[in-house]
Amino acid sequence: MMQVDLNCDMGESFGSYKIGADENIITVITSANVACGFHAGDATTMRKTVILAMNHSVSIGAHPGFDDLVGFGRRNMSLSLQEIYDLMIYQIGALNGFVTSEGGVLNHVKPHGALYNMAAKNKGMAEVIAEAVYKVNPELILYGLSGSELIEAGKRIGLRTANEVFADRTYQEDGTLTPRTQEGALIKTEKDAILQVLKMVKQQKVITTNGTEIPIVADTICIHGDGENAVRFAKDIHKALIEDKVIVKSL
Amino acid sequence: MMQVDLNCDMGESFGSYKIGADENIITVITSANVACGFHAGDATTMRKTVILAMNHSVSIGAHPGFDDLVGFGRRNMSLSLQEIYDLMIYQIGALNGFVTSEGGVLNHVKPHGALYNMAAKNKGMAEVIAEAVYKVNPELILYGLSGSELIEAGKRIGLRTANEVFADRTYQEDGTLTPRTQEGALIKTEKDAILQVLKMVKQQKVITTNGTEIPIVADTICIHGDGENAVRFAKDIHKALIEDKVIVKSL
Amino acid sequence: MMQVDLNCDMGESFGSYKIGADENIITVITSANVACGFHAGDATTMRKTVILAMNHSVSIGAHPGFDDLVGFGRRNMSLSLQEIYDLMIYQIGALNGFVTSEGGVLNHVKPHGALYNMAAKNKGMAEVIAEAVYKVNPELILYGLSGSELIEAGKRIGLRTANEVFADRTYQEDGTLTPRTQEGALIKTEKDAILQVLKMVKQQKVITTNGTEIPIVADTICIHGDGENAVRFAKDIHKALIEDKVIVKSL
Amino acid sequence: MMQVDLNCDMGESFGSYKIGADENIITVITSANVACGFHAGDATTMRKTVILAMNHSVSIGAHPGFDDLVGFGRRNMSLSLQEIYDLMIYQIGALNGFVTSEGGVLNHVKPHGALYNMAAKNKGMAEVIAEAVYKVNPELILYGLSGSELIEAGKRIGLRTANEVFADRTYQEDGTLTPRTQEGALIKTEKDAILQVLKMVKQQKVITTNGTEIPIVADTICIHGDGENAVRFAKDIHKALIEDKVIVKSL
Repeated sequence: MMQVDLNCDMGESFGSYKIGADENIITVITSANVACGFHAGDATTMRKTVILAMNHSVSIGAHPGFDDLVGFGRRNMSLSLQEIYDLMIYQIGALNGFVTSEGGVLNHVKPHGALYNMAAKNKGMAEVIAEAVYKVNPELILYGLSGSELIEAGKRIGLRTANEVFADRTYQEDGTLTPRTQEGALIKTEKDAILQVLKMVKQQKVITTNGTEIPIVADTICIHGDGENAVRFAKDIHKALIEDKVIVKSL
Repeated sequence: MMQVDLNCDMGESFGSYKIGADENIITVITSANVACGFHAGDATTMRKTVILAMNHSVSIGAHPGFDDLVGFGRRNMSLSLQEIYDLMIYQIGALNGFVTSEGGVLNHVKPHGALYNMAAKNKGMAEVIAEAVYKVNPELILYGLSGSELIEAGKRIGLRTANEVFADRTYQEDGTLTPRTQEGALIKTEKDAILQVLKMVKQQKVITTNGTEIPIVADTICIHGDGENAVRFAKDIHKALIEDKVIVKSL
Repeated sequence: MMQVDLNCDMGESFGSYKIGADENIITVITSANVACGFHAGDATTMRKTVILAMNHSVSIGAHPGFDDLVGFGRRNMSLSLQEIYDLMIYQIGALNGFVTSEGGVLNHVKPHGALYNMAAKNKGMAEVIAEAVYKVNPELILYGLSGSELIEAGKRIGLRTANEVFADRTYQEDGTLTPRTQEGALIKTEKDAILQVLKMVKQQKVITTNGTEIPIVADTICIHGDGENAVRFAKDIHKALIEDKVIVKSL
Repeated sequence: MMQVDLNCDMGESFGSYKIGADENIITVITSANVACGFHAGDATTMRKTVILAMNHSVSIGAHPGFDDLVGFGRRNMSLSLQEIYDLMIYQIGALNGFVTSEGGVLNHVKPHGALYNMAAKNKGMAEVIAEAVYKVNPELILYGLSGSELIEAGKRIGLRTANEVFADRTYQEDGTLTPRTQEGALIKTEKDAILQVLKMVKQQKVITTNGTEIPIVADTICIHGDGENAVRFAKDIHKALIEDKVIVKSL
């Protein structure tokens, strides 16, 4: 039987500021990527999110990003490779402090936003990110865009990797996501999104914007935790997978 | 034979900003308290400082502080006990990321500045700080002002503790330091400072500002790493201890 | 005829984080206190909020706070008087940049959170805050807790002042607010809150928690902009004042 | 007679962290660019630097940068044009608060580091920066790399501009600076640097790395304020200009 992981970015609140319906989405997913205080999250939110995930037996991952709270880690920054390595270690370590002190185990690492997108294409960045994860703990799983440089770098250094796919984004013929700035970047109906998920998980294929069918590896599906319909949509994906005899569990 | 530890706050540079003569002072001390990015330090500085300490076989401790870079963690802040617990876990975890990834072992934790001073007198704060250290790793040694609430809280929860004394500060009859705002807070000559150190380490006693002699526990001596004469003074203390047959080593 | 100002804290969103229903509450109030980037707000939010206020002919004030985003400026901090003076100038200046560049005029200054509460009782703090406001522009109006040290300091230096009262908070016999940590700090029903407002504005009196009636100056009423019922409650206060022949306008 | 301005970045200390020999360099220069708290500087440092400049009758300019203290504003960041406009207004406003409250007049604006370099080549960025300066006060002078997009954008919107040249950097045939990453980016001897300065100021020409002579506008010379020899070198440039009958004064 096929199996797939459902992951979601969590713990992105900051002080008095709330983002995400963490308490609801946690019931649907199998892996939580917890913000580490640079692009979002603070120490108190991190502890609460770790406890929330443990209470629901959801796997916990670090979700490090650029040090850019006002930009939510979504703005490209030109850091040296050494600086990227260092911010990875810092943030993974900080989250691991909460996981360890609560008696849990850190499962994976998924870079956030601009760091994720840049590392998908930039081999040098991908390599120092993979190295940082490996140096903290070689048992950690590295999450990255399916088929990206980050996944390749993870494999080369000897990490387990998780190829991430998106339910509501369209793919181009070269396997990359259609940029959000382009027409047709988003799948419009929930039904089509679920069909794409099922095809990716069961057939390891996706139909591109050109209408061609290309291979894709789908170890884990990115679930959005914010927005009005996010939780309901996540539940529908979860249900469709199970009905189609896919095992939904963490890696 | 008596023994004592010489500890120094390190890794307090930030980006382009430099503080401290870490490369020099590291040759004299036996324990390094590494700033964790809140009151001072950044990810890159933390990694470099951890490597520096390991290269000199100096024990590594986390040196967490209030989230107040512009105030260098020296300004009192009214945080909830939960917030204090959380910022301890975060910062110890972050530093531990660098220690672990470099193959080292975290030895101790010493709160910084206002956090250190407040925890010396405030039992509630002392207890959550001790609890945070214990929850991350019960093998860690908790550094605090000699005879303070922080030391007491550490003992109660089952941590090893290190009573810290100061070479260049005078003590009041109740065993507390004379506040810097008062006349006579500092010992004026280096010679007198060294005499005080030797008395504290060898006799476990100190002469107060009133001229009376009181007992004091001296497990570790705070060495300053900044200022023109810091390194030379540290070397003189080190030399005087050895000449007086005190073993200088980490705990 | 009596007149009163309705003021509300605004522009407290930060990056992707949203707080407050600014677009709704702006239609009810006469003065907007705009966060200046330390406890809340960012440059983009400040510009938008200034434009929003100008479009609704609402007076614009600076709302400076402690440099503590994660604590939303609500945690006491021990700053020197000079540091407090400096953070006032910085934040008033930053907001004034947006007001000036949009062709508006800065009307007032109201400190935020812990800074407001500390300055209500601490004469030294009150004086440097008043001095900072005066030095930027002696025409600015200083908002403070009715009858507080801040109001007194403003008067002494020659500023116009606005005594602020609260609709939903109870008062003690000495004229101070009942601390939130005490029983009976909040007025429970909206009806009672409106009655208190009318009494304060029309009779310049308030009934304390002891049942006695004391004098109070009510130049401006603090309106909350967040929470489910905030906008509706603000509208009800506005309506009750007008029905009772009070002119609602900025100072 | 020819005339030229000597400008220097100042006020780049932050809290306990010191950068620059401001008290010395202020005696040599005619314009001070004061950091505004994003890439460097804090409120207290800004006030002190403004007072220092006024005491020496040195013109005061705002020196805004990216919000990246750990990177000292030297790392490229992908902000929207609106975000760049907003951070300019914020920082110019903040500094203007100190200038106004001390009874001074803001003279100019010079973007810092990565913001300066990006705006030199990116027309869109150059235009929003020029617009922000103009909107705060159309009398302000915009400093930019000689012949850059930023200078052009300033002229188009109607600002006075100051073409900045560098004493110790070499120029390429297209008039741009040789990147620091390339061989021969820096002029090696102080004597050659002074010769280049004199040629740029008196003949409005510079010899490029190819040996050809190209025209260059030199309204202001960038003086470094940090490093061992900075002050002495600045004095030597100042002296050489005066001996060669160039008037050294602000614009």
